[in-house]
Amino acid sequence: MIDLYTAPTPNGYKVSVTLEEMGIDYQLHAIDLMKAEQKEDWFLKINPNGRIPAIVDRDNDDFAVFESGAIMLYLAEKSGKLLPTDSKKRSQVIQWLMFQMGGLGPMQGQANVFTRYFPEKIPSVIARYQNETMRLYSVLDKALEGRDYLVDDYSIADIANWCWVRSHAWCGLEIDSLPHLKAWSERIASRPAAEKGVMVPPRNLDDEAAVKAAQSMLQR
Amino acid sequence: MIDLYTAPTPNGYKVSVTLEEMGIDYQLHAIDLMKAEQKEDWFLKINPNGRIPAIVDRDNDDFAVFESGAIMLYLAEKSGKLLPTDSKKRSQVIQWLMFQMGGLGPMQGQANVFTRYFPEKIPSVIARYQNETMRLYSVLDKALEGRDYLVDDYSIADIANWCWVRSHAWCGLEIDSLPHLKAWSERIASRPAAEKGVMVPPRNLDDEAAVKAAQSMLQR
Repeated sequence: MIDLYTAPTPNGYKVSVTLEEMGIDYQLHAIDLMKAEQKEDWFLKINPNGRIPAIVDRDNDDFAVFESGAIMLYLAEKSGKLLPTDSKKRSQVIQWLMFQMGGLGPMQGQANVFTRYFPEKIPSVIARYQNETMRLYSVLDKALEGRDYLVDDYSIADIANWCWVRSHAWCGLEIDSLPHLKAWSERIASRPAAEKGVMVPPRNLDDEAAVKAAQSMLQR
Repeated sequence: MIDLYTAPTPNGYKVSVTLEEMGIDYQLHAIDLMKAEQKEDWFLKINPNGRIPAIVDRDNDDFAVFESGAIMLYLAEKSGKLLPTDSKKRSQVIQWLMFQMGGLGPMQGQANVFTRYFPEKIPSVIARYQNETMRLYSVLDKALEGRDYLVDDYSIADIANWCWVRSHAWCGLEIDSLPHLKAWSERIASRPAAEKGVMVPPRNLDDEAAVKAAQSMLQR
């Protein structure tokens, strides 16, 4: 059994979608970001960085794993699923996972901050992050030309990138001009495990309340 | 033999320091970012994202690897060095590698952009990224209390984070108030392979020219 500590954000969904797709049993612990539960001492023992998501593997001496990308790799190796065994294909999946961790996630995350949460609206900064996110989308679009998934079969690389791409509208972007990316996004969205995973935990705030929650976190 | 395509930046140094520490033979190909060589067609075949660093492993069917974090993992698995074999310790190294990929690198990178390269000086945005970078430094500082390296022996997690921490002054930060981080940074800086790796490729621009080069890249 896996203990999953998460909240309704793209990085959180990366892990819940992965767990659902792998069919691994887990117990959900929804973290209340408004109450800054992720900064409480008990949680910092699980993730010293004070961020969601994190897991504790009860079947492996209560081993704690933080950073969504590291959790996905851990679960893939534990389950033998969603990560190729061939060393080259495996590296390619890790390359696209790192592309999401170091590029798409942080850049789209900043686009979210400056379009939605930051106290000032600064057009040049908004443009910087929207443009960079679109550039990264176009890299994915090109990589997906003529193929269903980033590396052969569906993998953690697809899940990681999709959990960000699917919420493109939140930072004011659209992907209609990127047909391969759009088809891939729809392909993944239709998977039952993906559909279920992005409801974990349920998003219990409307848009306005979600913006307020994110704004309160910027102060910490 | 490894072909290394790189430039004098923290993400580039992550790979050159790793190669030096592992004692792997490599041929240096310095990429001229001012000429946007990383956006040329031949390079996009190696890294579709058009960024340095990237490698091609001539001894593995000319296999190309992009994203610094993926390159470090690839080289660690190829050489059997700088990554524990114990599965828990290995995951912990990957967790701190992901912390750098998804947190420290992007946030300190944005601090660099807004303190040094962005056409406008926007105090609230500069403060956002300097504060977040200092917060991440303090997470590392706490993790390093009472230990020499992040996870037992020196690993790719130390190299990844150190290549950013060492250049803290470039975005206006100092680490004197973080004694464990500072001692760790000096400990790594004294390693011959680290000292050599951060000179690959040689930094052939003075500060002013480096700022101009980075500014020109913001337009792309």
